[in-house]
Amino acid sequence: MPIDDHKRAEIEAQRAAAHETRRVTVPAMEAILYERFDVLDHGFVRVIDYMGDDAAIVQAARVSYGAGTRKVREDRALIRYLLRHRHTTPFEMCELKLHIKAPIFVARQWLRHRTASVNEYSARYSRLDREFYVPDPAHLQSVREEQIARQRASSSGMDDLFGWREAAETREELAAQSGTNKQGRDDSLTDEEARQALSRLDWVSTRAYGVYENLLNEDESGEKKDPDRAGLARELARAALPVNYYTQFYWKIDLHNLLHFLSLRADAHAQYEIRAYADVILDRIVAQWVPATHQAFRDYAMDAASLSTGALDVVRRMLAGEAVDQAKSGLSKREWRELMAVLGREP
Amino acid sequence: MPIDDHKRAEIEAQRAAAHETRRVTVPAMEAILYERFDVLDHGFVRVIDYMGDDAAIVQAARVSYGAGTRKVREDRALIRYLLRHRHTTPFEMCELKLHIKAPIFVARQWLRHRTASVNEYSARYSRLDREFYVPDPAHLQSVREEQIARQRASSSGMDDLFGWREAAETREELAAQSGTNKQGRDDSLTDEEARQALSRLDWVSTRAYGVYENLLNEDESGEKKDPDRAGLARELARAALPVNYYTQFYWKIDLHNLLHFLSLRADAHAQYEIRAYADVILDRIVAQWVPATHQAFRDYAMDAASLSTGALDVVRRMLAGEAVDQAKSGLSKREWRELMAVLGREP
Amino acid sequence: MPIDDHKRAEIEAQRAAAHETRRVTVPAMEAILYERFDVLDHGFVRVIDYMGDDAAIVQAARVSYGAGTRKVREDRALIRYLLRHRHTTPFEMCELKLHIKAPIFVARQWLRHRTASVNEYSARYSRLDREFYVPDPAHLQSVREEQIARQRASSSGMDDLFGWREAAETREELAAQSGTNKQGRDDSLTDEEARQALSRLDWVSTRAYGVYENLLNEDESGEKKDPDRAGLARELARAALPVNYYTQFYWKIDLHNLLHFLSLRADAHAQYEIRAYADVILDRIVAQWVPATHQAFRDYAMDAASLSTGALDVVRRMLAGEAVDQAKSGLSKREWRELMAVLGREP
Amino acid sequence: MPIDDHKRAEIEAQRAAAHETRRVTVPAMEAILYERFDVLDHGFVRVIDYMGDDAAIVQAARVSYGAGTRKVREDRALIRYLLRHRHTTPFEMCELKLHIKAPIFVARQWLRHRTASVNEYSARYSRLDREFYVPDPAHLQSVREEQIARQRASSSGMDDLFGWREAAETREELAAQSGTNKQGRDDSLTDEEARQALSRLDWVSTRAYGVYENLLNEDESGEKKDPDRAGLARELARAALPVNYYTQFYWKIDLHNLLHFLSLRADAHAQYEIRAYADVILDRIVAQWVPATHQAFRDYAMDAASLSTGALDVVRRMLAGEAVDQAKSGLSKREWRELMAVLGREP
Repeated sequence: MPIDDHKRAEIEAQRAAAHETRRVTVPAMEAILYERFDVLDHGFVRVIDYMGDDAAIVQAARVSYGAGTRKVREDRALIRYLLRHRHTTPFEMCELKLHIKAPIFVARQWLRHRTASVNEYSARYSRLDREFYVPDPAHLQSVREEQIARQRASSSGMDDLFGWREAAETREELAAQSGTNKQGRDDSLTDEEARQALSRLDWVSTRAYGVYENLLNEDESGEKKDPDRAGLARELARAALPVNYYTQFYWKIDLHNLLHFLSLRADAHAQYEIRAYADVILDRIVAQWVPATHQAFRDYAMDAASLSTGALDVVRRMLAGEAVDQAKSGLSKREWRELMAVLGREP
Repeated sequence: MPIDDHKRAEIEAQRAAAHETRRVTVPAMEAILYERFDVLDHGFVRVIDYMGDDAAIVQAARVSYGAGTRKVREDRALIRYLLRHRHTTPFEMCELKLHIKAPIFVARQWLRHRTASVNEYSARYSRLDREFYVPDPAHLQSVREEQIARQRASSSGMDDLFGWREAAETREELAAQSGTNKQGRDDSLTDEEARQALSRLDWVSTRAYGVYENLLNEDESGEKKDPDRAGLARELARAALPVNYYTQFYWKIDLHNLLHFLSLRADAHAQYEIRAYADVILDRIVAQWVPATHQAFRDYAMDAASLSTGALDVVRRMLAGEAVDQAKSGLSKREWRELMAVLGREP
Repeated sequence: MPIDDHKRAEIEAQRAAAHETRRVTVPAMEAILYERFDVLDHGFVRVIDYMGDDAAIVQAARVSYGAGTRKVREDRALIRYLLRHRHTTPFEMCELKLHIKAPIFVARQWLRHRTASVNEYSARYSRLDREFYVPDPAHLQSVREEQIARQRASSSGMDDLFGWREAAETREELAAQSGTNKQGRDDSLTDEEARQALSRLDWVSTRAYGVYENLLNEDESGEKKDPDRAGLARELARAALPVNYYTQFYWKIDLHNLLHFLSLRADAHAQYEIRAYADVILDRIVAQWVPATHQAFRDYAMDAASLSTGALDVVRRMLAGEAVDQAKSGLSKREWRELMAVLGREP
Repeated sequence: MPIDDHKRAEIEAQRAAAHETRRVTVPAMEAILYERFDVLDHGFVRVIDYMGDDAAIVQAARVSYGAGTRKVREDRALIRYLLRHRHTTPFEMCELKLHIKAPIFVARQWLRHRTASVNEYSARYSRLDREFYVPDPAHLQSVREEQIARQRASSSGMDDLFGWREAAETREELAAQSGTNKQGRDDSLTDEEARQALSRLDWVSTRAYGVYENLLNEDESGEKKDPDRAGLARELARAALPVNYYTQFYWKIDLHNLLHFLSLRADAHAQYEIRAYADVILDRIVAQWVPATHQAFRDYAMDAASLSTGALDVVRRMLAGEAVDQAKSGLSKREWRELMAVLGREP
């Protein structure tokens, strides 16, 4: 599975080919087709194919006969209108096919989204490579800094943070946990502690592969290593491998459902590892493919905020000059903090 | 909505444009792109876009890095294997976008399939054209002949036919109907009766459009016809139009779900009108797009037969030399007839 | 299809039966089970079955073993949290099965939602009843008043209204229409014009049924009316019937997808006729079934507002004391009006 | 996560409660509600809720007002007809909610099915228990015996087996593997080799949990173990755990999609571990819930066979007295063997 010379040659062969087509074509997507965007330590995202562009969304919304003679500015306005008012079906008319390589625990979150088509590399029938994810200490550090920034943005020095930490706590309630919550990546981890933790993770991952190979009793070409004993089936031997091992899949999804995926997985509440993939897809692929939709999605969904009836009431009262505080707001403490953050006000 | 000169020019403009792409391209599909396949009296199917080809199915099944160096013969064998053993996910990796024009009652059956993306022309916001479906008397005749042929193929002269008629009767049971079943297109319709029936259908459809226009009180450019009175909203005025009026939609679906649609709608049990569309899609579009898949689908799905445990038992006994008849078969009369038809034996 | 004495007896028989169950049960739903909620002139909604309640959502979110010992107050808080933060999967754990009777054009909008299970009465195999929808003049009047209210709420006397009219206009742009827009139910319709329009609609609907019966050549029990001629198949004869004829279907959907349906169809932008059904489902059924979810849905979705990055910027500036107007807002005129309406401010 | 006394009490409390309902109720399902069916070494399946029964399928197919007065025999005949002719929508009208506990690699195969609703226990927010799957040596033995039986049933002593092994080989082709195929559970594994393999799997799984706990640095109540250092976040620590660790999920699915799932996962080609779950669901739950559907599914789907156009041609020729062999059949060797097996003939 690592990208060796043979695979590199296959990719290059595809990139070199040029065909003539009457279909809608996006030059910026052609430029990145089949290329590998690196993510995490061994992962990647590759665009395998795409269908449609910004104009195809408009064309479908109009159920029109041709590409039309509308101006780009008009198309852009209509796309913004459609996205703002949740007319989602025209966005389903564009399609993207990706080749993903990601740790199993990331793939598990990813494939929970049910509106895509998937073909995954089969560890039942094929041998997995010795490639597993170990977080970069620098990432741990940046996550720590993010947390501290969030903590400062929150209402006080208390350990009840705004942001993903908060989500975690509520999830904690789900799990009926008591005691001190140690969710998220603890911000008090020292460099030495981080180094030791990652070293242990590396150790157990490596040992697991040793067991895997021993159970399989075969080398990379599928030949028996020890000719005097039987190996275990691949479907059973893989049971030994941890969820940080890499898997691969082809993933095909329409633009509407892709945006929904990104709104959840490129969000600050998503786990860092899947967010790393979502960020690449959103800002390096979608932005090239359908720039008008990308901008509208940023403005009306990704970076927008939803205000409840209670929050709207507070904003109206504030605009009318009333000095509203949490006690008088009718909102819970958490909702109040969320609203103040959205409004960019220190409580 | 009729294809006028303006629309023809738009279509031609799209057909004339040529772009360069690195994507998988199917020359036979390029040749028919945007063209209109006529169906029924005013309907059509047009290919707007496609993604993938036979080789893309194999590539996804292998989760491979490039197009691979496999031979066409090997790809074909794998496609047949995948289809035979219901490994359906690789077929989801191809996508087709069509522009359809069909009577409302056909669109109603069509859009019952929930795995496609749809943008339909809105009679709420837009004016419908004066185009409605009236069956061709020749079609009525050919349907009659089909029925008679089926009747002959059935076990006897009784009115309990094999095929769609049979389905209809059971559906009758659903509807708890009693009395003589007059399902399907009656084979005793004379030419004169057919002419009169179609004439009545034409009359009421035309009158309905008159009411529609009167309620709208606007001409084709949206201007008031009678300036002294208000028109009804389009969303209400359309309530007067019968279900044989034409509608249009963009329809995007993956190959696996398309094949499922075709297995039901290109089937002899499907209503003639939707079958007319399904036949065009199956034999004039899918056959061009993914020829290996098309052939495998014909062999293993469309023209294949499923044998129940009871039917398999009968076949085994017959092959062992036993003279099995319905009474000794353990099958119901209907299942027995179905089996005899599948085995090409006159009971 | 009309609810005659026989059907009434069937419904009463089901209502009279009482079974013992260990399943989650909602007494308020038991009280309305199988009952008919009237909608429009001949339509209805009936609850046929339900699965789960508010507590079942919490139980699934916790993946817990039993019903748990949590207090109602805690469950309510968690439901609000889940809905606010788009943790939608637990809401899929509740299911509702309805029996709907609605005009065909309403069913067409309804069944565009693809995440439900549907069994519709078949006009291909069964005879349709002489029941069609004609709007109540009072409804026309109330719609007119609604429109006028919206018009007053809008920024000026110009014909560019806030609300559904606005959506219509943009849809107009989709349809590339020019000239005066006569979308929505025109507010200048006089009583006499309304009476005449409805009378014409009634006339053409009645005539269509006459043609339908003539084509069928059968009475209600399925017997030939004119024994000397053949009738047309039901699947063809129904082509004569307008889209205001009533159809029926069983409709089964999970709570998450039901709320999504209601957020679109109980919205002021939805057509009046489907909104009439959505309102009944939301406030007379969902409110009884899962009261905590119903309230949260009202607060965080139905009656909430989404603020774009641009709109948030405006609110922040206004709260900081700046006198922002449309010109300085960076918003389009339409977005500005929408924001002012959300903030309850006359522009 | 293990079922301790507290959980047992919660389950018993639910089982003890009895409510009155007007809904369709299946006494045989009430009897097993909430109970635990053991699967594998630590797994289980529990029925949490159900909606509908055999009669509800018929009621939906008829779009009827009440439960109807049809006889059980008639309902049974209709269910068989619907299933035989792929009228699948009425089967969507029944719904089942299960609580599953299964190894992660089984859950990964399970959740590839996209038509169900899922809530999974979150290893991101919650601590996983020390429970992992190690195959029972007896299972390994029974799998071996199954294989040998299949080998004998196949055309010759060659290693090209009929059945799942064959599928595996073709999958091998997918993975472009060469050399000796070591798919499936090798039949030459000695008892001592099996013991050693399972011991290694146990060892690495246990060590992985040790690393997990060390990384977390917290005890079961969430308290720090070593107060002088920070623990890793749960979402990261879980990266160390192998895919044989147990997870849990609530899983809700309609009957049609459940049958589709079972047709693939209770099939002999499915991996033993997921088949163990599918068998329990099919024969201990579905058989109790909808017995007529269960029998029809066995007869027309699970134990039926699909004959391609080529296979049908062979059968017809054989019935006509021709002595057909593979060379004259027009079928590939593999298809010929498959057909002979279906017909119960030694080639």
